[in-house]
Amino acid sequence: MPHLTFEYSANLEDRLDMQALCAETLRAALETGVFETGAVRVRALRADAYAIADGLAENAFLDLSLRIGTGRTLEVKKAAGQSISDAVCAFCAPLFETPHFAFSFEIREIDPELSWRKNAIHPRLRKGRE
Amino acid sequence: MPHLTFEYSANLEDRLDMQALCAETLRAALETGVFETGAVRVRALRADAYAIADGLAENAFLDLSLRIGTGRTLEVKKAAGQSISDAVCAFCAPLFETPHFAFSFEIREIDPELSWRKNAIHPRLRKGRE
Amino acid sequence: MPHLTFEYSANLEDRLDMQALCAETLRAALETGVFETGAVRVRALRADAYAIADGLAENAFLDLSLRIGTGRTLEVKKAAGQSISDAVCAFCAPLFETPHFAFSFEIREIDPELSWRKNAIHPRLRKGRE
Repeated sequence: MPHLTFEYSANLEDRLDMQALCAETLRAALETGVFETGAVRVRALRADAYAIADGLAENAFLDLSLRIGTGRTLEVKKAAGQSISDAVCAFCAPLFETPHFAFSFEIREIDPELSWRKNAIHPRLRKGRE
Repeated sequence: MPHLTFEYSANLEDRLDMQALCAETLRAALETGVFETGAVRVRALRADAYAIADGLAENAFLDLSLRIGTGRTLEVKKAAGQSISDAVCAFCAPLFETPHFAFSFEIREIDPELSWRKNAIHPRLRKGRE
Repeated sequence: MPHLTFEYSANLEDRLDMQALCAETLRAALETGVFETGAVRVRALRADAYAIADGLAENAFLDLSLRIGTGRTLEVKKAAGQSISDAVCAFCAPLFETPHFAFSFEIREIDPELSWRKNAIHPRLRKGRE
């Protein structure tokens, strides 16, 4: 945790640099100060088949899901979400000028009793901080 | 919202027209009358690696997740879900004649306090309705 | 149900046999004794674009989500999750020797009132047990 997963319609690949979007989202997530560096994983899943709204071929979507651990206040979560949402929207600004693009973003918490993790990145980065 | 995401085993690609399935699912979702046209996004994510049930190579799955906003009654949600499930099952009818196919479908609500969206499709379609 | 979905960074494809990982995860899930054979569906979704932790190109993640029906005790769920987590970690052991790999795993329950399923694999396997 946290996990940031984009899903997007494949017709965005020509219009959006998905690798750069992931990097920018990682930057924005770390800048909130709420997450540990070694824990943040951003990725994007391309959907080759899709059907959106009124079905125009130009219609495209970008949907982001953020899953986090429990223990943060609603205010902290809302502020972090707003920052990440703002960063993604800024990155996608040219797309919003067309009437064919929709962005969405959801935060959900992970049940601490029903989750497991093993992270070999943490020791490397935590060592660097000592 | 609503977001309809299929996950499917790659061995379905020869047996199911995923683009047509997405279009049919969009049609069924809109026909429920519960969702605004500009908000519906259907997509399908292909899993190239998978292992199903007793592991036969012919085994295949189609799994649908629908995420919606809050505020609808259980009855409305159940009726909409049933309609969409029926449409997908009808589309997949030939596959159910084999003993190697499984379909599943889940509805989940999105926390309104922890979600953000920016939709440039809505203004175009709402204008059309005025 | 149950549904086991891996998401992974594409740079793992050279280092991990995703098909074998799915098969091993299926085996581990069935060995818990908690799930019916015909119901278990494991798959892996590859993310071609991603950004992880401090952004090193070697950084890689494997994230597993297990969605199950309701009705099991917390103890049963925790034990099943631990067994599956152990099996995946054992399979990935060489990766944990590098400081660039992170695994995570979450269990979530599906609302029985808002889910539908139609499974043509069950009759074949249930017949075999009579």
